[in-house]
Amino acid sequence: MSTFTVELKRAVDDSYEIEIGRELAGTLAADLRGGLIPGRKRFALITDTTVETLYAEGIRERLLEAGLEGGIFSFPAGEQHKTRETKAKIEDRMLAAGYRRDCFVLAVGGGVVSDLAGFLAGTYGRGVPFINYATTLLAAADASVGGKTAVDTPLATNQIGLFNQPEKVYIDIGCWKTLPAREISSGLAETVKHACMADRAFFEYLEAHMDGIRNNDPEACEEIARKNCSIKYHVVMKDERESGLREVLNLGHTVGRAIETESGYRLKHGEAVAIGLAAVCALSVRMGYMTEEEAGRVRLLLERAGLPVRIPGYIDREALVRRLYTDKKVRNGHLRFVVPKGIGAVVEFRPGVWAEEVSETTAREIVMEMDGEEH
Amino acid sequence: MSTFTVELKRAVDDSYEIEIGRELAGTLAADLRGGLIPGRKRFALITDTTVETLYAEGIRERLLEAGLEGGIFSFPAGEQHKTRETKAKIEDRMLAAGYRRDCFVLAVGGGVVSDLAGFLAGTYGRGVPFINYATTLLAAADASVGGKTAVDTPLATNQIGLFNQPEKVYIDIGCWKTLPAREISSGLAETVKHACMADRAFFEYLEAHMDGIRNNDPEACEEIARKNCSIKYHVVMKDERESGLREVLNLGHTVGRAIETESGYRLKHGEAVAIGLAAVCALSVRMGYMTEEEAGRVRLLLERAGLPVRIPGYIDREALVRRLYTDKKVRNGHLRFVVPKGIGAVVEFRPGVWAEEVSETTAREIVMEMDGEEH
Repeated sequence: MSTFTVELKRAVDDSYEIEIGRELAGTLAADLRGGLIPGRKRFALITDTTVETLYAEGIRERLLEAGLEGGIFSFPAGEQHKTRETKAKIEDRMLAAGYRRDCFVLAVGGGVVSDLAGFLAGTYGRGVPFINYATTLLAAADASVGGKTAVDTPLATNQIGLFNQPEKVYIDIGCWKTLPAREISSGLAETVKHACMADRAFFEYLEAHMDGIRNNDPEACEEIARKNCSIKYHVVMKDERESGLREVLNLGHTVGRAIETESGYRLKHGEAVAIGLAAVCALSVRMGYMTEEEAGRVRLLLERAGLPVRIPGYIDREALVRRLYTDKKVRNGHLRFVVPKGIGAVVEFRPGVWAEEVSETTAREIVMEMDGEEH
Repeated sequence: MSTFTVELKRAVDDSYEIEIGRELAGTLAADLRGGLIPGRKRFALITDTTVETLYAEGIRERLLEAGLEGGIFSFPAGEQHKTRETKAKIEDRMLAAGYRRDCFVLAVGGGVVSDLAGFLAGTYGRGVPFINYATTLLAAADASVGGKTAVDTPLATNQIGLFNQPEKVYIDIGCWKTLPAREISSGLAETVKHACMADRAFFEYLEAHMDGIRNNDPEACEEIARKNCSIKYHVVMKDERESGLREVLNLGHTVGRAIETESGYRLKHGEAVAIGLAAVCALSVRMGYMTEEEAGRVRLLLERAGLPVRIPGYIDREALVRRLYTDKKVRNGHLRFVVPKGIGAVVEFRPGVWAEEVSETTAREIVMEMDGEEH
């Protein structure tokens, strides 16, 4: 018997910039000409069928004018297409079109596109660089920082994927004007989550500017794009591998993701998260970490953002409780929740521990109480 | 317009040990009890249907006795099952069985198993640790060092995957006794490649001990396991991301992989690589980097290892030439080859450049010359 040691130590620098502004295709083209991704000229622009005609074709034109080459690979819009099958189809189309390891991926769209395209880039030829051009508020709020990429499977959302950092992120606020109201609301759910979790002053800013934001007020939109990045970044920076602190970003997501799946994706991610936020506020009140008045303020802000705060009648409550166990925070078979502490903070249960075990009985009671009755 | 910088610098230590010996299940159990993967008790043992009954069930028993828990997830043996679909099926079975991010993956088998299981581990819950228990000579030669994991697609082999380092590798030479002769030969192709590429003395060792190795002589088997790891390690250590030097490991693989795919996997990977090695020797003779006598020695050693050195008649030559362009070394549409320099070295064409452009005409001529006639 003999032993052989493989020494593999290295320094990794995954730093990148986020550019926030309007109509950033020109900036992107200039960055690429300036060597953002050295030695690579061929891009695979991955987008969905909605964004394709609205923005992706225009962006592709700009890049071709700048001397790059590449094509568009689109898939039908919607979370239900964020699957292994969609990823495989695009891979096969890229392989058939002769894309090799010397290409790069440009994701143009919302969170679904960047989740799928970032994952695809991370495994295409064992990894090619990718750029994220975010066209939605939700992508600005959720997908621009953290490096999480994934697809959904029939049994769980976001369980198959990678940590993969982009070369650069562009948040084009100009694109928000074409978002349906429901899409804006969905993005605001993650925004409200960030405020609840980490920044009381930002929560109050949202209370003061909610109408302006929903009407695409430029200054308010840029402010929330910046704040979303900054709050998420400060959490993620301290804990890139989601071992502890980063779990706070899951505020509202334990119930939220389960509802999203159980609704068969009739509810958008943000809508499901809004209900999940209302659920953890109820849990927090019950545990004594939040007043009923504070929970009411959160619910009111969510409703002003155009979001639901109750579980739709068509969702089977027992199936929902079972679904909670697919949450990735589950440990040794026990449900664990991140719990808000008033507005603007979360409970640190023990040093470095930000999620607490909750009994199935308690979780079921919370779920049963959110049955559409007024609070 | 505003810019936000995400700083993500960190030190990564992916070092691991390779244990070479016989019947290492006990060592594995002891390592796990001793904290090889701290805080994780649940394993998903991924294997193929052949190895399952021969070794995997016994290993699982040992781990259960050691206080761990986990099940076996097997798939039909053979390269043709190293696919995205097999990966998805196992993921779904693991999700259905309640495996979460707190599990780890134990690959038990040859290169196909470790390629697939290592890739799966890298994307399950965005990454869980994995251990590689290698039962074949090919896995010892090829899959134990380098961190390459991947699956095949209809259009290309090993193009979808990840760099993912295991927590530890066990090379169980005792398992080689149950390998079919064809499997041993297939593993010897990568071994001969390593010798051709980097170590003339090892090439001579193989010439002297080829019969002993094929008859499972313990000392010779341990020697080649160790040498394979050591040669590959010294190349990989200098170039983990395969930017330059690591391309030398592709010696014989440009033609080899194309033949493997065009044969519809009737040829094993090692058999295809053997033909690919013979092809680059012919190329090297033509380019003046190798004598015809040296090329003959390589062909003879491959034949003594039970390997083919000519392209089977059923393979369409023009389809094969087209298939060469799916090679990942292709750059800007040009074929590139790693070329042996005598025996025990490869040509460094320019400083840090180990692969050279070869015209399609030359590649076609080489392929046409290998049509089964004696040299």
